[in-house]
Amino acid sequence: MSGSKCARLSGALVRDVLDSVDCVLFDCDGVIWRGEQAVPGAPQVVNLLKEKGKRVFFVTNNSTKTRKMYAEKMSALGLRAAEDEVFSTAFCCAAYLRAVCRLEGGKVYLVGSEAMARELEAVGIRQTGVGPDHVSGRPSDWANVPLDPDVKAVVVGFDEHFSFMKVNRAMQYLARPGCLFVGTNRDSRLPLEGGKAVPGTGCLLEAVEMAAQRQAQTVGKPNRFMFDCVASKFGVDPGRCLMVGDRLDTDIMLGSNCGLKTLLTLTGVSTVADAEAHQRSGCADRQGMVPDYYVESIADLLPALQG
Amino acid sequence: MSGSKCARLSGALVRDVLDSVDCVLFDCDGVIWRGEQAVPGAPQVVNLLKEKGKRVFFVTNNSTKTRKMYAEKMSALGLRAAEDEVFSTAFCCAAYLRAVCRLEGGKVYLVGSEAMARELEAVGIRQTGVGPDHVSGRPSDWANVPLDPDVKAVVVGFDEHFSFMKVNRAMQYLARPGCLFVGTNRDSRLPLEGGKAVPGTGCLLEAVEMAAQRQAQTVGKPNRFMFDCVASKFGVDPGRCLMVGDRLDTDIMLGSNCGLKTLLTLTGVSTVADAEAHQRSGCADRQGMVPDYYVESIADLLPALQG
Repeated sequence: MSGSKCARLSGALVRDVLDSVDCVLFDCDGVIWRGEQAVPGAPQVVNLLKEKGKRVFFVTNNSTKTRKMYAEKMSALGLRAAEDEVFSTAFCCAAYLRAVCRLEGGKVYLVGSEAMARELEAVGIRQTGVGPDHVSGRPSDWANVPLDPDVKAVVVGFDEHFSFMKVNRAMQYLARPGCLFVGTNRDSRLPLEGGKAVPGTGCLLEAVEMAAQRQAQTVGKPNRFMFDCVASKFGVDPGRCLMVGDRLDTDIMLGSNCGLKTLLTLTGVSTVADAEAHQRSGCADRQGMVPDYYVESIADLLPALQG
Repeated sequence: MSGSKCARLSGALVRDVLDSVDCVLFDCDGVIWRGEQAVPGAPQVVNLLKEKGKRVFFVTNNSTKTRKMYAEKMSALGLRAAEDEVFSTAFCCAAYLRAVCRLEGGKVYLVGSEAMARELEAVGIRQTGVGPDHVSGRPSDWANVPLDPDVKAVVVGFDEHFSFMKVNRAMQYLARPGCLFVGTNRDSRLPLEGGKAVPGTGCLLEAVEMAAQRQAQTVGKPNRFMFDCVASKFGVDPGRCLMVGDRLDTDIMLGSNCGLKTLLTLTGVSTVADAEAHQRSGCADRQGMVPDYYVESIADLLPALQG
């Protein structure tokens, strides 16, 4: 294994690295697919890793799909994936609210998707409803908006119906003593095909945090809770896991936080120059964003798997 | 005059301070009124200052009203105020776009109020329309939303119809080369009667900035542009001006930035403890948030004016 960080993973080194792990964790957007299109070769890589006896998991900050929806999307793209191999923030956020916040049987104010509502329901947590919340009335009406007395937490994930009234309602709940505040993740953008992007959950969470003058606890990468969900369910050894992702601040940082080997793929957000800038910075906080290895695409793993 | 900062303004000192200035600039929300209710005694203070020959101006970060609407509100609360004494961010933002950005005859993408649209129109700047912008379609539709080729700037002020689609549309405009980015202000909350509040423009601007990965130029307090608008129109001497406000980070900072005397009133957001914490911090950046004087309410100026 190379002693230096941020080495290009190619040739014989690919097999060495794959031999050194039992388990591969993949981010999805920007790694296995971009929008609705598979990264060429990615489904084969995942399927071959499984055929070679590796455990494969999918660890994604995207909160708009249930585990079931992810498994279906993967199947449509030609990947073999079971629901319980998917660790998405919709699922992990529900797990966090149940296991850490002890909210089973409780109720949350949800800024999020139908998928988040379903994952909450699956662990016995009620929520106030998703979809549009349009403004009406005047500022004094907004400040005195009716609140549900059962709500014990505000939960923020990706919400295409995000609105001023949702920021306001979250702020009013968060002013109540003891109200918990949980966010799925802080990604600023959701990258799509062709270099395009749309605003990510981080933008929505930031607005609510500024209004509430409070910081949310986030569940998604780089918080180690996502990996802990995998490890507690499947008993994996961190030292024999490889985390593969396209973002230094979430995927690679998660790997560093949990003692995993890390591989940056260049089919998404971050570049080798970004990684090198972190490495050169001399700043301890930024060393965790330097991957062990990088590839142009996870398709670069194919020759070693096919050989 | 007292040599120490953050002195309580009372007794004979009130008259000394008022004698030392020709011009008084008032913030409005939390100073002259809270929501729809006048701070008791505030209208008389304003009227008496004018009777004593002081120039009075109103300098507010609230972008939801035109100058005309402010003059009408003041009249309804018993204050004598002319339109041209009002320097609101709706007006000053339009002035900034015309004078600094040279956008006269140009067009902006506006996240803001009808009042902002009218103040823009008054200086010959077109905008894309205000009101609801609800989401439809899928992420790839959002990323490819039709953009107006004439738009040269994104402008963000208070907008109760703020939505995910507005963040997205602003982000897509801001990805175009040369697109300018201007915000009215960064106030995190709009305080109302009874200690209540609703989210402020700062929350909306923060979401757009995070999505666009760009910082806006803000026009409102503490940026000195607001004072420069007053000074260039009325030729006032900064050393003979008193800035009166309830927020250390906007009102008092503006006064410090422009060399004005500063007076904190405790009928709004900030407290004496906040000011003292800034003073004790030893941090140069925070000394500008320490006012020269404070009063419980601007009604404390009444005895000196009536005597």
